[in-house]
Amino acid sequence: MITLKVKSSKRNEMIDITSSIRGEVERSGVAEGICIVYIPHTTAGVIVNEGADPDVRLDILDSLTRLAPPSEGYRHGEGNSDSHIKAALVGSSVTIPIEQGRLALGTWQSVFFCEFDGPRSRRALIRIL
Amino acid sequence: MITLKVKSSKRNEMIDITSSIRGEVERSGVAEGICIVYIPHTTAGVIVNEGADPDVRLDILDSLTRLAPPSEGYRHGEGNSDSHIKAALVGSSVTIPIEQGRLALGTWQSVFFCEFDGPRSRRALIRIL
Amino acid sequence: MITLKVKSSKRNEMIDITSSIRGEVERSGVAEGICIVYIPHTTAGVIVNEGADPDVRLDILDSLTRLAPPSEGYRHGEGNSDSHIKAALVGSSVTIPIEQGRLALGTWQSVFFCEFDGPRSRRALIRIL
Repeated sequence: MITLKVKSSKRNEMIDITSSIRGEVERSGVAEGICIVYIPHTTAGVIVNEGADPDVRLDILDSLTRLAPPSEGYRHGEGNSDSHIKAALVGSSVTIPIEQGRLALGTWQSVFFCEFDGPRSRRALIRIL
Repeated sequence: MITLKVKSSKRNEMIDITSSIRGEVERSGVAEGICIVYIPHTTAGVIVNEGADPDVRLDILDSLTRLAPPSEGYRHGEGNSDSHIKAALVGSSVTIPIEQGRLALGTWQSVFFCEFDGPRSRRALIRIL
Repeated sequence: MITLKVKSSKRNEMIDITSSIRGEVERSGVAEGICIVYIPHTTAGVIVNEGADPDVRLDILDSLTRLAPPSEGYRHGEGNSDSHIKAALVGSSVTIPIEQGRLALGTWQSVFFCEFDGPRSRRALIRIL
């Protein structure tokens, strides 16, 4: 298993980890298989979406904040219930096929570590089969 | 890897691709394993949900449009930020167990290619392990 | 494949199934691999999130009910469209790496069977590779 270290610099942030994952897939020598990206945190998640225009990321983050506003009369005392909810909506894992030794991402797709309670030092786990 | 071609006919549409996936699982001869459905697009996703009553699909699509309305003061200039947000909420991959040579879907479950920026020609990637 | 039986006691409920999954991973003897949790229902799903403070679960469930309210003029005649929508948002599968014979969950992470139309007798499918 490979552990990617990720450093976030904002409370909400989508960090492009595609090139690191691509590098690990190439290094693995696996020609046909799958790559699992797993986020071992409860206030962070993973999204595969457009990497070309950074505005898409900002629109996604704004939208998640509309769906889970920071203050909404939550029970949990740590003041980050919105972060947990965003993580639950977005999900903790994605599985991407590997074909001919390369990650089968679509033309416009990038893989994003999604920080919802930063800034923090985080990890993404990569498993290649 | 298998590529399913999908043609959508509306801007928002859930297209049942279960029978194609079932066919590929049977053709693979895999008795015990997993089937990964991966969507290589940034404005489309995958949902496993009820296939029996088409109204469920419409309710899900309407609900996603309430959560990510088409116009909401987005930054991204292409006018399809809502489509990207829906794809991020719904997710790009699902992994379904295979048991005794068959997809272990529940009685009421179907697999849907979710179009959020159609009509378009699309693809779903199927990997069987 | 392993089938976990889950009994829910409320309409909306997040049930911690981590210890059962951990037990199955240990029993499998797999040292390095993946564990897939799959929910074969259309009004239930799976979330990986904080297990320590039960309030986090309640905040997530409340938030999902705000996003998909029980009555909203749905088409589907069975009166549980909100349950289907929640299941679509949350997702039907999660894939967790196994490392050194153990589930690679983060410190605060638990795996939850998410009931959205209980109380019912349910199943979660576990596949270890």
